[in-house]
Amino acid sequence: MPRHFLPWIAAAALAPSLFGQTAPNLADQYRDTANKLIDAALMDQGGVEKLSYLCDRIGNRLSGSPGLEKAIAWAAKQMKADGLVNVATPPVKVPHWVRGSERAAMLDPVTHPLTMLGLGGSVATPKNGITAEVVPVSSFEELQKKGRESIQGKIVLFNVPYEGYGRTVQYRASGPSNAALLGAVAVLVRSVTPVSLQSPHTGALEYNPGAPKIPAAAVTIEDATLIQRLVDGGNTVKVHLEMEAHMAADADSANVIGEIPGSEKPEEIVVIGGHIDSWDVGAGAQDDGSGIITTLEAAHLIVKLGLHPRRTLRVVFWTNEENGGAGGLAYREWVGDQAGNHVAAIEMDGGAEKPTGFGISARSDSQTMLGKIRDVGKLLERIDAGSIQSGGGGADIAPLMKEGVPGLAVRTVGTHYFDWHHSQADTSDKVKPEDLRANIAAMAVMAFILADMPDTLRTPPAATK
Amino acid sequence: MPRHFLPWIAAAALAPSLFGQTAPNLADQYRDTANKLIDAALMDQGGVEKLSYLCDRIGNRLSGSPGLEKAIAWAAKQMKADGLVNVATPPVKVPHWVRGSERAAMLDPVTHPLTMLGLGGSVATPKNGITAEVVPVSSFEELQKKGRESIQGKIVLFNVPYEGYGRTVQYRASGPSNAALLGAVAVLVRSVTPVSLQSPHTGALEYNPGAPKIPAAAVTIEDATLIQRLVDGGNTVKVHLEMEAHMAADADSANVIGEIPGSEKPEEIVVIGGHIDSWDVGAGAQDDGSGIITTLEAAHLIVKLGLHPRRTLRVVFWTNEENGGAGGLAYREWVGDQAGNHVAAIEMDGGAEKPTGFGISARSDSQTMLGKIRDVGKLLERIDAGSIQSGGGGADIAPLMKEGVPGLAVRTVGTHYFDWHHSQADTSDKVKPEDLRANIAAMAVMAFILADMPDTLRTPPAATK
Repeated sequence: MPRHFLPWIAAAALAPSLFGQTAPNLADQYRDTANKLIDAALMDQGGVEKLSYLCDRIGNRLSGSPGLEKAIAWAAKQMKADGLVNVATPPVKVPHWVRGSERAAMLDPVTHPLTMLGLGGSVATPKNGITAEVVPVSSFEELQKKGRESIQGKIVLFNVPYEGYGRTVQYRASGPSNAALLGAVAVLVRSVTPVSLQSPHTGALEYNPGAPKIPAAAVTIEDATLIQRLVDGGNTVKVHLEMEAHMAADADSANVIGEIPGSEKPEEIVVIGGHIDSWDVGAGAQDDGSGIITTLEAAHLIVKLGLHPRRTLRVVFWTNEENGGAGGLAYREWVGDQAGNHVAAIEMDGGAEKPTGFGISARSDSQTMLGKIRDVGKLLERIDAGSIQSGGGGADIAPLMKEGVPGLAVRTVGTHYFDWHHSQADTSDKVKPEDLRANIAAMAVMAFILADMPDTLRTPPAATK
Repeated sequence: MPRHFLPWIAAAALAPSLFGQTAPNLADQYRDTANKLIDAALMDQGGVEKLSYLCDRIGNRLSGSPGLEKAIAWAAKQMKADGLVNVATPPVKVPHWVRGSERAAMLDPVTHPLTMLGLGGSVATPKNGITAEVVPVSSFEELQKKGRESIQGKIVLFNVPYEGYGRTVQYRASGPSNAALLGAVAVLVRSVTPVSLQSPHTGALEYNPGAPKIPAAAVTIEDATLIQRLVDGGNTVKVHLEMEAHMAADADSANVIGEIPGSEKPEEIVVIGGHIDSWDVGAGAQDDGSGIITTLEAAHLIVKLGLHPRRTLRVVFWTNEENGGAGGLAYREWVGDQAGNHVAAIEMDGGAEKPTGFGISARSDSQTMLGKIRDVGKLLERIDAGSIQSGGGGADIAPLMKEGVPGLAVRTVGTHYFDWHHSQADTSDKVKPEDLRANIAAMAVMAFILADMPDTLRTPPAATK
């Protein structure tokens, strides 16, 4: 007898339809279990403690750094302590970018130190640095319009006001090569953030193989707008930039994997996780310590409550999300022809502010899936996290989603995430314990039901088969 | 005939009383003039340009620094260019504190650089720094309770959550000496700010002459709460602190003074101003570039509109407000027995966020004064800056207020001022042009009416004499 038979009957008796054609929905089936998980999560202290340990004692975790190695060893130990089994750390080779020392200063029309962070992946400047006039632009169109005669030999500043991360981050990613193609010698990018207290934000650049590689750094909103004002006032602005940044040989790293084996269909897998690496500033607390700890603690609570999902619930801490994506690719390779057995994947990589629900992406059946997930969402309404939207997934589960695995992502209010992310300010104090607990609750309920529901997301409900 | 005779008649004709016992109030008398000033201020570009020049081209201006000298020379020139007369820069000797190089790091239980700013006035550490265990406390009561046995030889961290500037700043001011009296070797203070992106905020400490002078620095909320969590978790936290801070010989500085001479009673003075010095970080934009530029531009608009107040309207940029108050004291000395001729003083030192009105403090007649000022407030309602509250003044006009001069201060929404002040983030981009213009409008109207009204704030209205 299915373990959820009794609530199923109770729900059926209460169903609004008198003609029996309405199958018991997931909300009715799982209400009791969900409430138990939510109750446990809202009282949970383990998530807060683990996040503190990761951020305060280990700190940031760039690919190739000792911090990441320590975090991986700790995470594997912690998964075992939390009752996960088949804990493994399959090796992954990761790019190893080293920031080295770096500085920038305005020399003309005034001397002024610039607060900066080199962009991840950037090459170094020559040993004595680069000194050149700065040409600010506010879009790629403006850059093209200025053309080679204005850009050649100059430092281009992409002074682009923040209009949401997705729209603005392209200047950090592609700005350096776009400017290099017109002869620029270096690039400064106004930090991709809505708010600044002289706060530079790093992040990956993507060199275009067809363009010369030039050094690139983020400056603060304050310094970018200062340069803009000075240029607008008719001044020639000269900046000196020194960066030692370079790529070292690929480093040894690993994904960290642990499971709650499925009781009936252990070969079917729901994978949940986030990325264990971070940038080399701050403590990687919201990005993405909060994601990995939420998924681990959700699994831990499922174990603690003695729940045994039908399918295998797998927690994965992917490595190298920030500057390479090697962990997500390696996981896809590691699962081999098991990829098709993944019935759902949830990536949490948007911080643990107050959760609002989940987003879901899939190649087909999206209405069916949305309907099922919205049933689960009803169980999260008591913590205001029941909103289910189309559009989910994440960089680490993208290789699975490409093969048809439905991908989900936690959604939050997202009020301050981009104020902190990729900066020195991404520290554990930014994660409110009550918000972390609510995320753990939402993750535990969604993950458990996905792993336990009679049908998978992709099969139609039993009653209409 | 008084220049405001015609509007006076018009207002009287419209007065609600039919029996003639109601004197025309200030709002009715000055409505047209106020509207002209507001119209001019809301179109003004000069304020924005001057603030940009001061912050972007000159930068920060600590007492004794070349920046302050440059700013003083520029300000005197600018006052003349803006039509003020009797421009003077009477010399003031100011304390000259030098930050020197400084750094701090946690050594145990993890190595972690601390983001810090030495407190203004702090002494240096020994050349090789101070390494000691950190004892966090959250109040003076907790410090006393811990007593000498817990504090002797330690670094005390005042980890006091922000509860408004006035309540929290005492730990920055008096914390160092209070800890020194119990044998502490250095003090760290959680920055006095509601918001942090790893943002340290400096500010003056006040050594108690009876206590040993120990070095003191502000750390960020992030680092203060990190230390607290580590100590709460049972760890011994060790910090290394190195500071070269020291007092140099007193430096030459000056107040900057310019006037619109009174047309009828030039010996009676309304003084308006702010402080020209700043801390040695950021650009002193909100604190207090915005204050001095607002008062200068208000006077400039009065000149531009060809208005001639009955009394002298004097603009003063006081020096050394931040770490000594020498400018305010020197001004009091400079005016000698003219102090009694000051009929009102307005200090603007709370930033130029959206203004809400004015606060006023005085030793007597406060109801009469409040009533008069509230009449003026009515003229500022069209820019939502008409709220008049009891309680005003400022550090630089305190010596005048002590002798009975009514002191006023601009009030603003105050949403972000303390996020920026005394930090690297106090830059001109934080001053919204529209807010600066509204402050200029409010200041121009209030200053002009105070200098022109038939009676002073302290004399009863003519009709009831």
